Amino acid sequence: MNLSPLQIARYEYSPKLPGMLRNGVSEISVKVGEPTQSVADQDKIKALFPNTYGKEEIKFEKGTNTAAPKKQVVGVILSGGQAPGGHNVVCGLYDALKATNPENVLLGFKGGPSGLLEDDFIEMTDEYINQYRNTGGFDIIGSGRTKLETVPQFEIATEVCKKHGVTAIVIIGGDDSNTNAAVLAEYMAANNTGVQVIGCPKTIDGDLKNEDIEISFGFDTATKTYSELIGNIERDCNSAKKYWHFIKVMGRSASHVALECALETQANICLIGEEVAAKKQSLADITKQIADAVEARGNNGENFGVAIIPEGIVEFVPEFGKLIAEINELLAGEKTAEFNALPSWEAKYAFIEAGLTKESMAVFAMLPTGIQQQLFLERDPHGNVQVSLIESEKLFAELVKNELAARKEAGTYKGKCGFLTHFFGYEGRCAFPSNFDADYCYSLGYNAFMLISYGYTGYLSKVSNLSAPAEEWVAGGMPITKMMNIERRNGEDKPVIRKALVELDGAPFKFFEANRDKWAVETCFLYPGAIQYYGPASVCDITTKTLKLEQEAK
Amino acid sequence: MNLSPLQIARYEYSPKLPGMLRNGVSEISVKVGEPTQSVADQDKIKALFPNTYGKEEIKFEKGTNTAAPKKQVVGVILSGGQAPGGHNVVCGLYDALKATNPENVLLGFKGGPSGLLEDDFIEMTDEYINQYRNTGGFDIIGSGRTKLETVPQFEIATEVCKKHGVTAIVIIGGDDSNTNAAVLAEYMAANNTGVQVIGCPKTIDGDLKNEDIEISFGFDTATKTYSELIGNIERDCNSAKKYWHFIKVMGRSASHVALECALETQANICLIGEEVAAKKQSLADITKQIADAVEARGNNGENFGVAIIPEGIVEFVPEFGKLIAEINELLAGEKTAEFNALPSWEAKYAFIEAGLTKESMAVFAMLPTGIQQQLFLERDPHGNVQVSLIESEKLFAELVKNELAARKEAGTYKGKCGFLTHFFGYEGRCAFPSNFDADYCYSLGYNAFMLISYGYTGYLSKVSNLSAPAEEWVAGGMPITKMMNIERRNGEDKPVIRKALVELDGAPFKFFEANRDKWAVETCFLYPGAIQYYGPASVCDITTKTLKLEQEAK
Repeated sequence: MNLSPLQIARYEYSPKLPGMLRNGVSEISVKVGEPTQSVADQDKIKALFPNTYGKEEIKFEKGTNTAAPKKQVVGVILSGGQAPGGHNVVCGLYDALKATNPENVLLGFKGGPSGLLEDDFIEMTDEYINQYRNTGGFDIIGSGRTKLETVPQFEIATEVCKKHGVTAIVIIGGDDSNTNAAVLAEYMAANNTGVQVIGCPKTIDGDLKNEDIEISFGFDTATKTYSELIGNIERDCNSAKKYWHFIKVMGRSASHVALECALETQANICLIGEEVAAKKQSLADITKQIADAVEARGNNGENFGVAIIPEGIVEFVPEFGKLIAEINELLAGEKTAEFNALPSWEAKYAFIEAGLTKESMAVFAMLPTGIQQQLFLERDPHGNVQVSLIESEKLFAELVKNELAARKEAGTYKGKCGFLTHFFGYEGRCAFPSNFDADYCYSLGYNAFMLISYGYTGYLSKVSNLSAPAEEWVAGGMPITKMMNIERRNGEDKPVIRKALVELDGAPFKFFEANRDKWAVETCFLYPGAIQYYGPASVCDITTKTLKLEQEAK
Repeated sequence: MNLSPLQIARYEYSPKLPGMLRNGVSEISVKVGEPTQSVADQDKIKALFPNTYGKEEIKFEKGTNTAAPKKQVVGVILSGGQAPGGHNVVCGLYDALKATNPENVLLGFKGGPSGLLEDDFIEMTDEYINQYRNTGGFDIIGSGRTKLETVPQFEIATEVCKKHGVTAIVIIGGDDSNTNAAVLAEYMAANNTGVQVIGCPKTIDGDLKNEDIEISFGFDTATKTYSELIGNIERDCNSAKKYWHFIKVMGRSASHVALECALETQANICLIGEEVAAKKQSLADITKQIADAVEARGNNGENFGVAIIPEGIVEFVPEFGKLIAEINELLAGEKTAEFNALPSWEAKYAFIEAGLTKESMAVFAMLPTGIQQQLFLERDPHGNVQVSLIESEKLFAELVKNELAARKEAGTYKGKCGFLTHFFGYEGRCAFPSNFDADYCYSLGYNAFMLISYGYTGYLSKVSNLSAPAEEWVAGGMPITKMMNIERRNGEDKPVIRKALVELDGAPFKFFEANRDKWAVETCFLYPGAIQYYGPASVCDITTKTLKLEQEAK
């Protein structure tokens, strides 16, 4: 196998465990805390999870290990989008499992949850797992997006577990996957299968966050990677002094990634979807906000800048949501065929104009032609507009360009600049995990096995106090049901883990809000540079600004 | 000033000089070599450069400094696109200048060569320059693309130099800027202005390379940055196993950057423009080549991959060049207005169909609509197609998608994958310079001052033996005229530095060629990870594969 120098070097890195897990597995005991309640809808959640609801939070501490010395066969699953550090969760799990009993077995189900249903796995060995220590990616077993949520699936999973003597499953995933872990745990308990289920909080999006999850793994590395690139682009535009760069960053609906990148790089503009929704901003409002910054900077002779656009932004613009709903309606059922049969874009445009309300047509008319066509021509298998494909970085660049042209005409804007757009997403999901993510993930996996060993099920592997040095981290477990509430999803009431959006009264947003007017007009760029794995702690052990601000505010 | 942790840490880095420059300025003497000749067109070049042609190559060595102790006022200019390490050239120049005589002065002309013409500069001080040590960007004085090439410009430059007592100018730039440096040096010598001119070889594109320039600065850091991202994407697609990523990388016409990234990451496909031209490949040929790899991998169950596309690729496809020429002809002069007045794209398409030759129309018809429209709608001020704006990564993704659909229809292709596209360019031009670029650039700047101090003009600051440790680097100077030949540019014979394209019989391409069939079908990805500035030498002092292979072949 042909390896990069960094990959070879990273094999030698020893991830740091929380102090209380450093004494060897024989010296880890449980401290049982208070029984828990779900964050809302307690009666409904309790009724849905009679066997796993209301359990106690637990913490580990130094003390004699009193777990039953049963042989464990653990299955591990990587679910959903990649996040840096996933391999280390598996490695931590493996190391704790083998340290407890060399006869214990770790099975890696391949290609996500479908691996469990298809009985497709590999058994982990030292030789195999050592190739993946401290590396990025989910290629150790692959990932997938199959949802484990129906009883027939659970029945198959039970059969597969029985066949291989599986005693526990660890699901590494986001909010949906951990919700599914809780449901599976309840099923396994209700049916006395003897299979425990433990979840681990993964997502670069940062939207799996609550009282018990300070940060999901991968957010640290992904935002550092995007911030490296944004910082490099800031420096480029501050050198060439003639471009504004509009940069979309991944992160689904929530704007956590964009906000963290803004705090890391002090870009001139960062849109926050949650704020757009709260203030019911229109496309014109947002355009004006950005154009004001371009104009103010241009009038200072600074005809360059950087604007960060969260991936989910357009979903938060009320008038845009209305437009999308109308388009979906306009092309519902047979009307798609009628539309498609129209001979030219001009004819299609007339059809659209006749079908939309005046308000939505006004929004539609503002859009660049490319995006207008995309809304009608690229549709998902259900005929719906694919909002996630909308190139919002190009949309806002175009709208701002038009606005500035109008202002130039009117004589208020005197500057001159070009516009360039970027989208950063895939680049950050499989980077080598930062030391933080390497340590955190290894700890989550190690800790997950301790929860299994002590017989817990329906728990999330919880490691907290994460802005302190790893020595002071707190390891333990929290019933997943504690994080759940009932939400309406696809017309049904479902128990789910509440998705965390950016809180407009939270410390990270408040800090951003207090500084953004200055950052917009002045050039306050910060250049974070590439993630460092070596060197002074000041460069290789940096906490995200989001976590730091949140922890300081506690 | 608010600084990132890495920026603070990098201020402490001491760039490494070649051994012979490490003994202090008083211990640097000159070893004069043989007189030189231009690489071609000797008589013509000699006639154009009567005062600066044919001078000796020189090297520095340890020995008593015999340079005249004259006070120096040096002006420095950053020319053209940013490249990591530019700040260190200025720092090295400053340190050597001040070490020689604290009364010496360094002026930084702002915003590129225009700063000299507009008499716009700042005087460098310790305090100012220390903010820029070992950082990326050209923001220390800004850059620009004004070409210094006419006598009226030279007259102004002479006036500005006289006004401030400037004794020498250092131009940091690419092939054109160094050509201009040679012409300016000749003018200054012919007119007895007393102003010396020294060039430094800059460009991330890697196309300023010859017998005397082993590598231009910035290539190392930029290709490492792109390779980091390409490697991360490789790992992502090897985890999700459902996407092919088409990644365009910057680098102008030459494919050096793409080739280096391919060697660093072992991507499945890398197009090389120079090979496309040599083999006279068509769009269909290239599409077939990529589709064959997608099909072969798909038939092995590997429905994912990475293809690297050099920025300049379409210019090398003969039939595409012909199409562009015909389009420029078709819309020349008043015909643009006629074309623009056509009411719909359908009408425009008919106009195009009537105007192109059958062969070119066949090429045009292959293109995705977005690119067809771009060719006609986005034109430069002279009405010409803007080839550099063509999204060739999208072009080839679309062509390959269509080809695979046809093969699926025919039953030969059984796989299924999605396509995603990226463009990496601006991200890499202003990264913190790698240790190599930090050292090399500092050495170039330091060495440039030694050349000034010994009275040389029309010389390039030359540092060689660069794949060895810095201790063994060789510092000296080479007359720029030695690298020149006569080329036809815009209808005129011009003395220029020959632009280096990828040599198809050179070691880097040969290595790529020997491995690419395997890389195309198997998954041999290398994941280089982020540039490391600290840690073991194996990760923080890595030579580019291109340079290593070239040096080994010597």
